[in-house]
Amino acid sequence: MIQLMKLSQGVEWGLHCAAMLALSPAGAVVRREVLAGHYGLPDAYLAKHLHSLTRAGLLHAVPGPKGGYRLARDPARITVLDVVEAIDGVDKPFVCQEIRQQGSGALTPDQCKRTCAINVVMNRADVAWRNSLRATTIADLVARTPAWIRDRNSGVLTNSVR
Amino acid sequence: MIQLMKLSQGVEWGLHCAAMLALSPAGAVVRREVLAGHYGLPDAYLAKHLHSLTRAGLLHAVPGPKGGYRLARDPARITVLDVVEAIDGVDKPFVCQEIRQQGSGALTPDQCKRTCAINVVMNRADVAWRNSLRATTIADLVARTPAWIRDRNSGVLTNSVR
Repeated sequence: MIQLMKLSQGVEWGLHCAAMLALSPAGAVVRREVLAGHYGLPDAYLAKHLHSLTRAGLLHAVPGPKGGYRLARDPARITVLDVVEAIDGVDKPFVCQEIRQQGSGALTPDQCKRTCAINVVMNRADVAWRNSLRATTIADLVARTPAWIRDRNSGVLTNSVR
Repeated sequence: MIQLMKLSQGVEWGLHCAAMLALSPAGAVVRREVLAGHYGLPDAYLAKHLHSLTRAGLLHAVPGPKGGYRLARDPARITVLDVVEAIDGVDKPFVCQEIRQQGSGALTPDQCKRTCAINVVMNRADVAWRNSLRATTIADLVARTPAWIRDRNSGVLTNSVR
């Protein structure tokens, strides 16, 4: 059995990096190598995911040798869902192929104006999933991190400023 | 962006076929070709999915030339989640790689006894998704199908008995 229902690794990376950036002293940008080094991530692949977060308006990228990343807005206004959708897209996992309009039992498009009960159930579950992810922000994740780790990571970022 | 979070087509097929089988006169098995023909599905690929449903104990398969499939239990006791998990497996879409134990910021396993806040949030969303799918049964899907379609499909099954 091939498991299709799978989030990319970038989701974990993006969430950790966003939580890390939330600890950066106000306005300070963090070099990508600092994030990659801190979490032992391949730099080029991390770049791709940070680019996705930037394109989605969650990170602000400062170009140049003194450049790097910072959160584009208050971590209390960035949800886990924002990061998940920025990395893995907004497409729903269930795509109805309308097989009720196929085969010898085919219904006409006119008979299918009401959404199929199966599609309704699958969409409802998707909404429940997204609502759950929307209920937690990056600020919440930071708040749930033990204080000593927060302090240590803040120190790492402060020391990394060139 | 490659969309990874995707259910297999077999989920839609399995749910439609289970709802169809729920309309079969008590005890009557339905040939696979009848299901494949009714929904215009490729027979060999449908066989694979019906086999998954059988292995999961949701369908009962009768072998031989007069064989076919019937539901293995009351449709009110088969949930949408049962079918989804039978087809696509029970693995969670988020697999924590514990990157907090990697890189220059690595925590020790001892410091990671508490589940990472990110993993907690992702698991909670997965539970919400599964609970939502568990709240609807095959009997519910049948009940939400317009009566004239139910009657027509029952007729198809009755006429298909050899």
